Amino acid sequence: RKIAFLPGDGVGPEVSAAARRVLDAVAETHSLSLKYNEYLFGGAAIDTAGDPLPSETKTGCLEADAVFLGAVGGPKWDGGALRPEKGLLDLRKALGVYANLRPTSIAAGMEHLSPLKIERAKDVDFLIVRELTGGMYFGDRTEGNDTARDECLYTREEVSRVARIAFEAARKRKGKVASVDKANVLATSRLWRNAVNDLHQAEFQDVEFSHVLVDAMAMKLIQAPADFDVILTENLFGDILSDEASVLSGSIGLAPSASLGDGARGLFEPIHGSAPDIAGHGKANPVGAILSAAMMLRYSLDAGEAADAIENAVAGALEQGRGTSDIGGEDTTASFTEAIMALIE
Amino acid sequence: RKIAFLPGDGVGPEVSAAARRVLDAVAETHSLSLKYNEYLFGGAAIDTAGDPLPSETKTGCLEADAVFLGAVGGPKWDGGALRPEKGLLDLRKALGVYANLRPTSIAAGMEHLSPLKIERAKDVDFLIVRELTGGMYFGDRTEGNDTARDECLYTREEVSRVARIAFEAARKRKGKVASVDKANVLATSRLWRNAVNDLHQAEFQDVEFSHVLVDAMAMKLIQAPADFDVILTENLFGDILSDEASVLSGSIGLAPSASLGDGARGLFEPIHGSAPDIAGHGKANPVGAILSAAMMLRYSLDAGEAADAIENAVAGALEQGRGTSDIGGEDTTASFTEAIMALIE
Ligand SMILES: CC(C)[C@H](C(=O)O)[C@@H](O)C(=O)O
Ligand SMILES: CC(C)[C@H](C(=O)O)[C@@H](O)C(=O)O
Repeated sequence: RKIAFLPGDGVGPEVSAAARRVLDAVAETHSLSLKYNEYLFGGAAIDTAGDPLPSETKTGCLEADAVFLGAVGGPKWDGGALRPEKGLLDLRKALGVYANLRPTSIAAGMEHLSPLKIERAKDVDFLIVRELTGGMYFGDRTEGNDTARDECLYTREEVSRVARIAFEAARKRKGKVASVDKANVLATSRLWRNAVNDLHQAEFQDVEFSHVLVDAMAMKLIQAPADFDVILTENLFGDILSDEASVLSGSIGLAPSASLGDGARGLFEPIHGSAPDIAGHGKANPVGAILSAAMMLRYSLDAGEAADAIENAVAGALEQGRGTSDIGGEDTTASFTEAIMALIE
Repeated sequence: RKIAFLPGDGVGPEVSAAARRVLDAVAETHSLSLKYNEYLFGGAAIDTAGDPLPSETKTGCLEADAVFLGAVGGPKWDGGALRPEKGLLDLRKALGVYANLRPTSIAAGMEHLSPLKIERAKDVDFLIVRELTGGMYFGDRTEGNDTARDECLYTREEVSRVARIAFEAARKRKGKVASVDKANVLATSRLWRNAVNDLHQAEFQDVEFSHVLVDAMAMKLIQAPADFDVILTENLFGDILSDEASVLSGSIGLAPSASLGDGARGLFEPIHGSAPDIAGHGKANPVGAILSAAMMLRYSLDAGEAADAIENAVAGALEQGRGTSDIGGEDTTASFTEAIMALIE
């Protein structure tokens, strides 16, 4: 099983290293053979190769069974002609990973970590399915100092294929999908709503289904997060809502993501960014990266039991009160990682 | 002082009537003469006049000193060729109200109403300044069943004029502005960032200033809402972030807004929508509308003391534990309104 390994920028290398230690631990307990090929990516690749996604990196990712990414970006490259983030968008597109899965849950007994009052934090367990290769992120743009323009485009096919992933995920969960758009204003949202409706009618009538406007969803995630199961939305809304959602469990540092396309190959990355302010201090929360590694085992490497083992170990370490400072703990990245590794059976 | 009065749809008429009772009460205590002209608007205007913004309504608004609006929209008009929301967008554009002010605060002692843990809800007091007449809301669109397109356009001038309002507001508050964009992806956000930077450098160096990415802001509003003073952003991001912010104080039903342009004339509306599920039941929270009426007195009708009187009365009623069910109270719209009126001196 070949993993293209992209540590990236800022805290990326630190959390990637932590995830790799945990992967090596489960590889041993679960007799998996994992082979890593490390590539330059993001700002680090701009500095060395003048390109945030060098062709060697791209080819390596396309030839791998899964791609693991730490984080990209940082103030060093802000305002430059080459942007690390451009490399990430190009990589997502090249891999064809149009569905970004971002789970949020608060385990029973862990409600004290949430910024929400205990009653509201109870029973939170939802999955955001974010469209990842369309919309404003990939539309035509006009850069300009006096006028600028971004275009948002969606095709019915782009909407249907990601909606299918959401409905199928709901069938394996609590059987509910809420589709988010701004259909009272945007043409792309009206297409979105029609396409999702049609797919629901044709193939997924067993799934409970509703539409929620994006502004209303931004409220409901705070007011009644336990009401949701699968939340389906387009690229830009998904960026905003999944970051909002990620802190409900205590810290964005805990949140993993998987990006999938039509085959098994996926891209796995924590939701947090490169966090330049804490990079190099050994205090980044490794859990987002470690849980992304678990998602990689489950979705791309056909190793669901090893994924379960990692997730249980993370839950166990949190229950023991272990954690980095972002969740009020006293661990370093390394000691938190070791606490998790110690719980891998 | 002429007020164009647009009750609109759903709970709009109920909360508008409540605001008007309170306005009449302060008009008496503060010797103001307020003249109301009521107009059809939104879905109600589609039903009667076949147009969400009939020309009589538009003319009446343009001739008034201030426009007061309840709410627009509802399932009855969803999917129709004429949309109530289109009337609202056209009205904002016609009035030239490019700056939408949405304050959020949690009074000391009222932290229990917030969905956030008490510590996080302390000292929250910020103002979102949302650009209101540009961006994706007003770009060119292609409606379509197989492909759809929305365009987002900004000019430097559109950004500068709303940024000026934010910087000036900050000078009268805590002296801080956070400007929100998605400059790591969007061309319009890079223009936004440059234009706001330039204005800050040229005229507002005394104001503490930072840039925050929209996804990060969606988190920070939950994690550290007390860190912010003035939050400046474009139209669509402002729609999402201000709804998110509105529930921090307990309910979107509490949140007012003022939309201003270059002159004194403004548009005043609660942030909540038409809430069709509770319309006609007499249980809508009137506070968003009542505080919008206070903003109208302050910004358009040169009656700051009357505005203060309303705001103090609302704070007093909340302190007494009065409130509708959305904030855990037992009042109806009418009894809550009367409790507020009783506190107007
Ligand atoms: C780095 C940035 C381009 C990226 C995005 O907006 O998609 C990030 O915020 C994310 O959510 O993965
Ligand atoms: C009704 C709708 C068009 C409107 C908007 O999106 O601006 C509303 O959500 C608001 O925030 O005032």
